[in-house]
Amino acid sequence: MWNTGAAAEQASDGYTTIFREATRLFGERGYTGTSMRDIAKAVGMLPGSLYAHIASKESLLFAIIEGGVDRFNHALDDVRATSDDPRVLLREAIKAHVRVVAENPGRTLIVFHQWRYLGDENRARLLDKRARYEHFFTETLRAGVSAGVFDAGLDARMVVFGLLGALNWTPEWFSPDGPATAGEIGEKLADALLNGPLIRADPTGG
Amino acid sequence: MWNTGAAAEQASDGYTTIFREATRLFGERGYTGTSMRDIAKAVGMLPGSLYAHIASKESLLFAIIEGGVDRFNHALDDVRATSDDPRVLLREAIKAHVRVVAENPGRTLIVFHQWRYLGDENRARLLDKRARYEHFFTETLRAGVSAGVFDAGLDARMVVFGLLGALNWTPEWFSPDGPATAGEIGEKLADALLNGPLIRADPTGG
Repeated sequence: MWNTGAAAEQASDGYTTIFREATRLFGERGYTGTSMRDIAKAVGMLPGSLYAHIASKESLLFAIIEGGVDRFNHALDDVRATSDDPRVLLREAIKAHVRVVAENPGRTLIVFHQWRYLGDENRARLLDKRARYEHFFTETLRAGVSAGVFDAGLDARMVVFGLLGALNWTPEWFSPDGPATAGEIGEKLADALLNGPLIRADPTGG
Repeated sequence: MWNTGAAAEQASDGYTTIFREATRLFGERGYTGTSMRDIAKAVGMLPGSLYAHIASKESLLFAIIEGGVDRFNHALDDVRATSDDPRVLLREAIKAHVRVVAENPGRTLIVFHQWRYLGDENRARLLDKRARYEHFFTETLRAGVSAGVFDAGLDARMVVFGLLGALNWTPEWFSPDGPATAGEIGEKLADALLNGPLIRADPTGG
């Protein structure tokens, strides 16, 4: 139902307002703590009138999360075009992730945490899109190890989980009002994550 | 009220059952999506009878989160005793974090994400304890940079945010039923996070 109605839903102004207020409310109170009545009140409609714009509360959550994950995946499509060098690709992917988070940290928190509340079908679709995102990091790391530019001695799964964890945690601390731009943060975060703090050339060991 | 009543609350068997079921429900439905009625039903009590054991729904959430954060802080107290070498301290802190997560990944997810739902006073106490945890990483990194064993060229804030993000994300993927133990995962994750994938000695740059 949501699938076929998506274009029509997104075309209306009412939908845009509902989407914005639902994002705010899910962020503040959680999906399970937000009722259709709460959303209706926030947009100044009667609860029943919401259904002229959306199929269900879950369809709203799915739209918020799917839209967010799609932004992350689209950003990687741009990254793929930048280089064949796995080092450049991984650095650009980190920077792209920070840029997407910076566009809307509150929405990103919903994307990363509230997918748990989706029903089975929507959750499966969503996890499939997230898997595509993670696959880029896994494949880029593998390519870099093959090319001899990434450390073959590290556990690849741990490197990818470490990178994605660090990236998925960025909305917890990134401030759009901070002194550094998303671009500057992305560069510095990429340096930190790709190099690691340990100086391996240290003659005392490490 | 919670503060003074904490010892008495935790002494009762009823409290233990309520605590366990509330942890499960908050994990499944979120704090805001769980009512006192839901908790009462899960433990087989009348809603009003819960108040013989707990002060409020928020006092339960706070107990779950504070108990979790205390475990992380206590684990660091043990780490501090292991060495004066910042490299060892950081490695042992990563391993300790994975061990605490592995004890109860579901509870840890509540600790990391649902503190947002605490009232101002409880949230301030909680954030103070989390700040103490983060401070260990900041100070250990600083000591290692001074000692010349950690890379002074990296942005220290980004290194710490990267490490903590990777660590705080572990309950999303760690499986207590997986083939690797928490100790093995901790070692490999520490290698990945401390070294980073990039081979810096690579003569082509990097």
